[in-house]
Amino acid sequence: MKLQRRQPRVNGEDRLAEIYKIAAQIICEKGFDATSMNDIAEAVGITKAGIYHYIPGKKELLFEIMSYGMDKLEHMVIAPARAIADPEERLRAIIANHCRVITGGITPQGYNAVTIVVDEVAALTPAHRRKIVQRKRAYVDLVRNTLKQLKEEGKLKDVDITVGAFSLLGMILWLSRWYRPEGRLQPDQVGEELTKMALGGFLRPSARFVAR
Amino acid sequence: MKLQRRQPRVNGEDRLAEIYKIAAQIICEKGFDATSMNDIAEAVGITKAGIYHYIPGKKELLFEIMSYGMDKLEHMVIAPARAIADPEERLRAIIANHCRVITGGITPQGYNAVTIVVDEVAALTPAHRRKIVQRKRAYVDLVRNTLKQLKEEGKLKDVDITVGAFSLLGMILWLSRWYRPEGRLQPDQVGEELTKMALGGFLRPSARFVAR
Repeated sequence: MKLQRRQPRVNGEDRLAEIYKIAAQIICEKGFDATSMNDIAEAVGITKAGIYHYIPGKKELLFEIMSYGMDKLEHMVIAPARAIADPEERLRAIIANHCRVITGGITPQGYNAVTIVVDEVAALTPAHRRKIVQRKRAYVDLVRNTLKQLKEEGKLKDVDITVGAFSLLGMILWLSRWYRPEGRLQPDQVGEELTKMALGGFLRPSARFVAR
Repeated sequence: MKLQRRQPRVNGEDRLAEIYKIAAQIICEKGFDATSMNDIAEAVGITKAGIYHYIPGKKELLFEIMSYGMDKLEHMVIAPARAIADPEERLRAIIANHCRVITGGITPQGYNAVTIVVDEVAALTPAHRRKIVQRKRAYVDLVRNTLKQLKEEGKLKDVDITVGAFSLLGMILWLSRWYRPEGRLQPDQVGEELTKMALGGFLRPSARFVAR
């Protein structure tokens, strides 16, 4: 599918976010190795010299896309979750907010390219890979610790905390590949459905959440 | 990470399966476009002419890897599931068998490369893409119809069937990226944990499965 050319905006940060999103889309379509800085410049609608004003090179760009994705996760999911003391409320917030990040970033091509690119750490330099892997681990730990706290409070079913954390992330991240905003389900409905299923799988019926 | 050279086996089918698995690994590491037939021949331990004895070209190879992955799913998950009349038993079999396929195919690099490659349909020719997408849809439909049947029997909680099917597949497919066979959890334990969580999320407590 051909990407639409867009007009540059004034705000530098918006502009960068736009470049990252478009670049992620092209990387998903063509693969990282087959994508040139020229392809990205063309899709964004600026000159090749112009793109180098924003990004020093292709490997740097990949790291920047991932950092942009992780920053968004940090601001919209991780930071708000850390502010919630109650583990059930925290778990609900994590699911709802992470679903919102993913469904809100589905491109016209029908998937969330940034989320998919964030997963392809193999092409990064070792130093960059360590940084991204570390940020991902911190998020997995947040989810795992939330389940652990629910276990300590006697609210968790007899489920393994590690399997639980990764399974929940798998459910949420998979949205980036199948959810269509133009379809039957509104973004928040999807978040609610996932919350229902996950909490039904994790929490004892005696907990506040009552399985229907 | 460097791939180990292996000795060719006598059996032609085993040999092909081995080539697909090694090729999937290289594609995951280098990206499809950056991978040459020569890279694959070298990793498999045969000449470039030798690899062409098995596979006519690189795009064909990608399709063959995906078909191999889908064949395995067909034989180990879909066909056995279709033989089970009871939807709850069918759902349990789907989860357990699909988990087994994924955990059993984790390579020494720490992920199931075939499962990951099966997801990258963008590089296929349109005709090949249609075939793979069609096979995937048939599997999603099997899961969705199983949930629908549970709903009709009054066993399903108030969850959306489509979101439920994709969420379950997300949980299972994510195993290809995080599960380590050398870790604390045995493959069948992971399958049991996923089954517990999924059934706890899907089924009413009044159904045969009793949430602990």
